[in-house]
Amino acid sequence: VSARLTITTGDPVTDLGARSVVQFEHRHGIIDLSWGHPDPALLPVAGIRKAAAGALDRYGPDALAYGASAGPAPLLAQIADRLEVVDGRRPDGDELLVTAGNSHGIDLVSTALLHSGDVVLVESPTYHLALRVFRDHGLEVRPVACDDVGLRLDTLADVVRSERDRGRTPRLLYIIPTFHNPTGRLMSAERRGDLIEAARALDLRILEDDVYRELSYGEKPPGSLWSMDDQATVVRLGSFAKSLAPGLRVGFLTADPATVRQISNSGVLESGGGIAHFAALIVADFMSTGEYAKHIENLRRAYRSRRDALVHACQEVMPAGASWSIPTGGYFLWVTLPGNVDPEALRAAAEREGMSFMTGVPFQVDGQGEQAIRLAFSRYSEADLREAMARFARASI
Amino acid sequence: VSARLTITTGDPVTDLGARSVVQFEHRHGIIDLSWGHPDPALLPVAGIRKAAAGALDRYGPDALAYGASAGPAPLLAQIADRLEVVDGRRPDGDELLVTAGNSHGIDLVSTALLHSGDVVLVESPTYHLALRVFRDHGLEVRPVACDDVGLRLDTLADVVRSERDRGRTPRLLYIIPTFHNPTGRLMSAERRGDLIEAARALDLRILEDDVYRELSYGEKPPGSLWSMDDQATVVRLGSFAKSLAPGLRVGFLTADPATVRQISNSGVLESGGGIAHFAALIVADFMSTGEYAKHIENLRRAYRSRRDALVHACQEVMPAGASWSIPTGGYFLWVTLPGNVDPEALRAAAEREGMSFMTGVPFQVDGQGEQAIRLAFSRYSEADLREAMARFARASI
Repeated sequence: VSARLTITTGDPVTDLGARSVVQFEHRHGIIDLSWGHPDPALLPVAGIRKAAAGALDRYGPDALAYGASAGPAPLLAQIADRLEVVDGRRPDGDELLVTAGNSHGIDLVSTALLHSGDVVLVESPTYHLALRVFRDHGLEVRPVACDDVGLRLDTLADVVRSERDRGRTPRLLYIIPTFHNPTGRLMSAERRGDLIEAARALDLRILEDDVYRELSYGEKPPGSLWSMDDQATVVRLGSFAKSLAPGLRVGFLTADPATVRQISNSGVLESGGGIAHFAALIVADFMSTGEYAKHIENLRRAYRSRRDALVHACQEVMPAGASWSIPTGGYFLWVTLPGNVDPEALRAAAEREGMSFMTGVPFQVDGQGEQAIRLAFSRYSEADLREAMARFARASI
Repeated sequence: VSARLTITTGDPVTDLGARSVVQFEHRHGIIDLSWGHPDPALLPVAGIRKAAAGALDRYGPDALAYGASAGPAPLLAQIADRLEVVDGRRPDGDELLVTAGNSHGIDLVSTALLHSGDVVLVESPTYHLALRVFRDHGLEVRPVACDDVGLRLDTLADVVRSERDRGRTPRLLYIIPTFHNPTGRLMSAERRGDLIEAARALDLRILEDDVYRELSYGEKPPGSLWSMDDQATVVRLGSFAKSLAPGLRVGFLTADPATVRQISNSGVLESGGGIAHFAALIVADFMSTGEYAKHIENLRRAYRSRRDALVHACQEVMPAGASWSIPTGGYFLWVTLPGNVDPEALRAAAEREGMSFMTGVPFQVDGQGEQAIRLAFSRYSEADLREAMARFARASI
């Protein structure tokens, strides 16, 4: 329960006492690297305050009316401009739609493009909560193995073939090619091109989760799969959750016009109008003033320094035989532990010392063991990260 | 395309020219009573401007972080307090969840509680876009006839029986008991009680669409079906779209704790956090200052007067043999036309005279004809409504 929790009614509301304002659950005395959340100190409160007033000043009641189903044009224009810079391809207006964030994008696509019982292929490991969204829609999920530069295309073909042998037709591949969660991996440009070709040959559509693109700490990452696609193979999801503020619940998707039209004409968007209308206009205002580009530079600087602090600490405290790659973007460091270390037991010991992390198990489709742990460097300062890893070291003895 | 549309980038963005800020499509020279939208002049722009600043001042970065999955506690508390006043029952904290509006509530329930191929029963006629949401989820929809006080329970039992005879088990009844869309009908308290008993006997759950409750122009309406339910039969949807501002995309649902937990634990809410976090805190701030209760009084006064103006105009211009009931709340007047009038032809003639409305067809599950039209009195002033009906009169000659 957040320390900031204030029930705003006059009387104490005991039956709401277990509820909080935010999702993050602070556990006393624990530096918790299990959360893929931004540092509250990096959320631009003053800028959003100004942008909210700016959106209302500029659009008046239109900012509060039922919004255009695909999202308000001013935000579509801002996103298009920004993607031209950071992704090398500018979507046309009919290739773009505003979502209530990445998870909501997965949800919309699951409803609009898939049917209960369809098979969805995912990287192994993959973002654990995406699996939950797919399963909520009655979809079956199958893992595909990866190597150092991304999804293994030979395995992809094998999995599709074996599913077809059992009478199932995989429809969609869900993939995070850029600063992958949980591994931090960046798929090479060459593998991206090969993957698109492979997907077409296998009659698969690709759902590309691209939420970490803005958070790059080295060279600019290769363009999205969507930026390389001219045959309606890829639906790409983006979000302002990592690059601006998750509480605004504003994201977007880019796809071919027919797919965008199908989603935009869905009952939920036709009925309610744009899913995050006012928040979308706030983001548009924030982008139009140049605040967004400056904010991204700040985030890159802050997270790069945190990544470096965490990597440096790992070099000092990780047990012999542990290995990791240095992520060039995103939120996470993925550490493979030597075979003699039990990740679950290590986590229990770490929590007794006052730090925590996620083990690899939830990121596996089959819940099987994984000799790895995920450390998020997004939420804490360099000093906190160093302290967390000192506690980790005490737990590892 | 709205006159307010401004593309905020420097250059003209022609490929976004077809997109707009808002959903409402203004047609030059037409007073369009087909839209169930609030009057932009009744949207509290200044109040929301203050509430947005208030939420950020009070909660700081917590207003922009990932929000609690079921919605932020301050809004849950405000909704609970308000329902005690307007619905006669205060939900406990674990009986309440924030949605991104009513349509999103239907969407969440369709994903969480139903499976593709399930049968959903609806009133005939019913809200046409709810049908679209159900169908997007692969659900089958069956109509149940109504009389003057609500759903016919004998027909309900007949439909359930006949579905079972064909091997289908209806799971859910979607119903709008209070100021129904499109008919404006208010279900009697007695019928409400009988309906809950009937639903239990038939092993049906009820999805109650309760978005118009605040907009009552006479006596306080009977309590919601949810307020009368102690056996987890009813999920009730509410929204701030009609009572405050649709562009905020904030609504709620009340249900038994197990159902709320199931929806709150869904992938999309676990992954993204509360679906409208910042907007929800804006609403909470607006409610906490007393602005909301005052705003509702203003809306009731304004819409009551518009209803009266429209009803009075109908008494003057409707063809002999037309009939309607005076709605005691909501947005709509439902007029049954005499058999010699073709609603579709009348609408075409009305558009030539400069006004429009919806015919009854879209509100029918089977798209069959319906000798009725829906006139929304929410979006236009009394003067505009009178002018619209004068044009209608010219079209009816």
